[in-house]
Amino acid sequence: MNYKKLGKILGKIMILEGILMLAPLVVSFIYKESLRHILAFLIPIIAVTAIGFLLQLPKPKRDDLYQKEGFALTAMVWIVMTLFGAIPFVINGDIPNYIDACFEIMSGFTTTGSSVITDLTVVSHSTLFWRSFSHWIGGMGILVFVLIFIPESNDGSSMHLLRAESPGPQVGKLVSKMKVTTRILYLIYLGMTVLEVVILMFDKPIPGYEDDQLFLNLLATFGCAGTGGFGFIPGSMELFHPFSQYVMSIFLILFGCNFSLYYLLLIGKIRDVFRSEEFKSYFLIIGLAVAFVFLGLVGRFEAFPQVYTTEEAFRHSLFQVASLMTTAGYTTTDYHVWPMLSTMALILVMFIGAMAGSTAGGIKVSRIVMALKGAYINVRKLINPRYVPKAKFEGKTLEQNTINDVFAFITLYFFIFLAALFLLSFDPVNGQMVTIVSDAGTYQVEHGFFSNFSAVLTCISNVGPAFEAVGPYSSFAGYSEFSKVILTFTMLLGRLEILPVLILFNKRTWKKI
Amino acid sequence: MNYKKLGKILGKIMILEGILMLAPLVVSFIYKESLRHILAFLIPIIAVTAIGFLLQLPKPKRDDLYQKEGFALTAMVWIVMTLFGAIPFVINGDIPNYIDACFEIMSGFTTTGSSVITDLTVVSHSTLFWRSFSHWIGGMGILVFVLIFIPESNDGSSMHLLRAESPGPQVGKLVSKMKVTTRILYLIYLGMTVLEVVILMFDKPIPGYEDDQLFLNLLATFGCAGTGGFGFIPGSMELFHPFSQYVMSIFLILFGCNFSLYYLLLIGKIRDVFRSEEFKSYFLIIGLAVAFVFLGLVGRFEAFPQVYTTEEAFRHSLFQVASLMTTAGYTTTDYHVWPMLSTMALILVMFIGAMAGSTAGGIKVSRIVMALKGAYINVRKLINPRYVPKAKFEGKTLEQNTINDVFAFITLYFFIFLAALFLLSFDPVNGQMVTIVSDAGTYQVEHGFFSNFSAVLTCISNVGPAFEAVGPYSSFAGYSEFSKVILTFTMLLGRLEILPVLILFNKRTWKKI
Repeated sequence: MNYKKLGKILGKIMILEGILMLAPLVVSFIYKESLRHILAFLIPIIAVTAIGFLLQLPKPKRDDLYQKEGFALTAMVWIVMTLFGAIPFVINGDIPNYIDACFEIMSGFTTTGSSVITDLTVVSHSTLFWRSFSHWIGGMGILVFVLIFIPESNDGSSMHLLRAESPGPQVGKLVSKMKVTTRILYLIYLGMTVLEVVILMFDKPIPGYEDDQLFLNLLATFGCAGTGGFGFIPGSMELFHPFSQYVMSIFLILFGCNFSLYYLLLIGKIRDVFRSEEFKSYFLIIGLAVAFVFLGLVGRFEAFPQVYTTEEAFRHSLFQVASLMTTAGYTTTDYHVWPMLSTMALILVMFIGAMAGSTAGGIKVSRIVMALKGAYINVRKLINPRYVPKAKFEGKTLEQNTINDVFAFITLYFFIFLAALFLLSFDPVNGQMVTIVSDAGTYQVEHGFFSNFSAVLTCISNVGPAFEAVGPYSSFAGYSEFSKVILTFTMLLGRLEILPVLILFNKRTWKKI
Repeated sequence: MNYKKLGKILGKIMILEGILMLAPLVVSFIYKESLRHILAFLIPIIAVTAIGFLLQLPKPKRDDLYQKEGFALTAMVWIVMTLFGAIPFVINGDIPNYIDACFEIMSGFTTTGSSVITDLTVVSHSTLFWRSFSHWIGGMGILVFVLIFIPESNDGSSMHLLRAESPGPQVGKLVSKMKVTTRILYLIYLGMTVLEVVILMFDKPIPGYEDDQLFLNLLATFGCAGTGGFGFIPGSMELFHPFSQYVMSIFLILFGCNFSLYYLLLIGKIRDVFRSEEFKSYFLIIGLAVAFVFLGLVGRFEAFPQVYTTEEAFRHSLFQVASLMTTAGYTTTDYHVWPMLSTMALILVMFIGAMAGSTAGGIKVSRIVMALKGAYINVRKLINPRYVPKAKFEGKTLEQNTINDVFAFITLYFFIFLAALFLLSFDPVNGQMVTIVSDAGTYQVEHGFFSNFSAVLTCISNVGPAFEAVGPYSSFAGYSEFSKVILTFTMLLGRLEILPVLILFNKRTWKKI
């Protein structure tokens, strides 16, 4: 292990975290919060910056990183970011328990959006800002950010880190080839963020939040861009006007697209965008899911409490699909009480997730497409043993190795899913009744199998809200500390797509070579 | 397609089905059932025998079968067996709806044990016998039976059929090499069946069923041997005495072992048995699962209705794990109301299933072990790209191709799982309340997500009972016909391990070559 080099990069990230924490500190000043709230950010800023500088001092003997070091570092960086990022919540008292605070900020960085806060109205502005801002930071990746803006002598190292942190089966050559492109992608991300805020500002303010319009729209946009989804006023996006809800739906879907496609758009290769199989599959799945959710709502084959107009049913279908498929997790209504057809359509898009190379979690559309092609090839080979597969994906030959990696990933995904589900079964919260107050009325649900199942799903796919006792109008506060640690790791496994975390905790990674 | 040869084998199977149906016909006579009940078996016996003989007439031009023909034939045989095997239930009126009857007998042949019968006390003895007997037939495979007892000129064809029908990642060389061995395996199966019946007869009769002791023990044994699990008196095995419950637990675990191990025992290679990794993993998983279920019951971290003595808690834990892991599905108590820890341990063993080469369903222990080894290899390769895997399984090198097949299988397993789950969401039964009467009392449950989730799990793993609205004291009668067809196919996909069914429904299989 090249500890000194690892420390150097880790130190840079910590300094970056210190810089990023200046933003909520400014918010704290703007809203004239108490000294305690200001110190809540000031103390960790000083701490991470100091440690970060100390880590720069030793001179590494070699300047490059092995693949294993890159993967392990990526997982380590996310854990360190979380351990320090959680401190403000504990100091300012908004989330006094440190494990809860770690759950919250890991949920932020991994763009999950599951929360342990039960009453958002008593939380300070700086806390709300830091939570939502962490989505925006985590969306495009922490390491990537450092690597492209701070000059590094060796590009091989960057590659390993990019590979470990990027969502999806591979880093497109486009992205990995040059830092320039990645910088452009970051600029697109920034541009789209600004654009969304500007458009949202055209809407009339939310009654009762007239003075906070810019603040709320900024937070809403952070969640959309990073596909995070922390709520910051009661009822997630329920109180936002239909115009804003439509705008967010569209931006969510756009942020769920592979960012390389925007680069292709920018350089005028529009045809290539519409030729992309993942792009087409993504919109096909969105269309089908919206149709099924909508059918469930207007068909009323099952009784459910809310009475929607057709426009409302469509808007809620579109918003919920856009939000859960891109794994953001904002909601506009209590979807937990919806009919089974709508429920299952939402569950499936939570598994699938959005496109690779986006800010979203989940298995990713490209992996689903490749797995289906791989399954077809397996059947064809059994029908005719001399069959030579000519499968293509995105215009290139789909190699058997790639298919095998996809199968291996999906298998591991479900194994980790079931393991986490089993570990949650030790929680004393199971079997307890929870009271939910939502636009569907006040009702009681038991914390049962569906609660745990959807909790694991929402964490491993980085979505945010789940169903039943941990539905959109509830929180994860009821879980024991042990369960919260499990779910925190599940989020990290989901965000880094499993392998980097496994590598970090493998003893051979730490053997001298 | 070699239609004439396919027809010839299919015809032989049909004649065999006719012969097998003579057994319930005899039962019908013994219990002096009405003419309608006798005709219920006599008519289909005549029909299948006649069609079977007609199919023997055309002379096939070539005598061998291609791989695809073997796979497609296997799937076809199971469907034809089901379509004819369902007829008696419709004629004698025990299950008047033909789709229900197909569900029931497919559940029998695939050794699932899920039932649509709501009141077992009004069902005739011949129906009860035919259902349970179908477990015993399906357990060891229908085609295998025909192939080893009826001489076939070409052994290559047999291989393809054996491969398609045998549970587990591959047919052990032991089994495929010679018909003689397979015959010995059948004799072991028969011997163990007789042994279990004999031992069960030592128990005192069940109060109220004194005259039927042999009949009940025979049916109970059919379900254990085939790991089926149809109940035939109310409450599944609840009324059986503890002695019988312990005996069944042991036999269930024994029938969940790879039958090749018994062959090894017979020829004196005892050490090889205990060296088998799958064997050791199987017993390790059983031990852990029993421990966790037991811990959930005696710990009482969650309230649940039943009050068990320590012995009862242990017996119910052992029985439920043995029954659900070997995918039989007999039950001795209402496990649906158990604490989450016990529930999750049961759910996990339902996914895993028993050993390959046994009569059980599920993913199989060997696949789980190989997938974990494969995952470990992937991690090691990322840590050190020059790593050359030296993984072994059962003493032989574990080839990357085998691992890839396992990953592909598990991926497909979960895809089919989710697809079936989605299709069940159209059912109007969702959201309805169901009243359950069990040893846990009388309570109401909603037919919700957990019902559908566990219904798909129990069908794809060929277990039998599920949870919630389709728990051990309920039936599948509430599902719509559409859902029943979906679940019927899910059972078949589970029993034949997916690929043969996909091949049957692929148009290229039917192309002339």
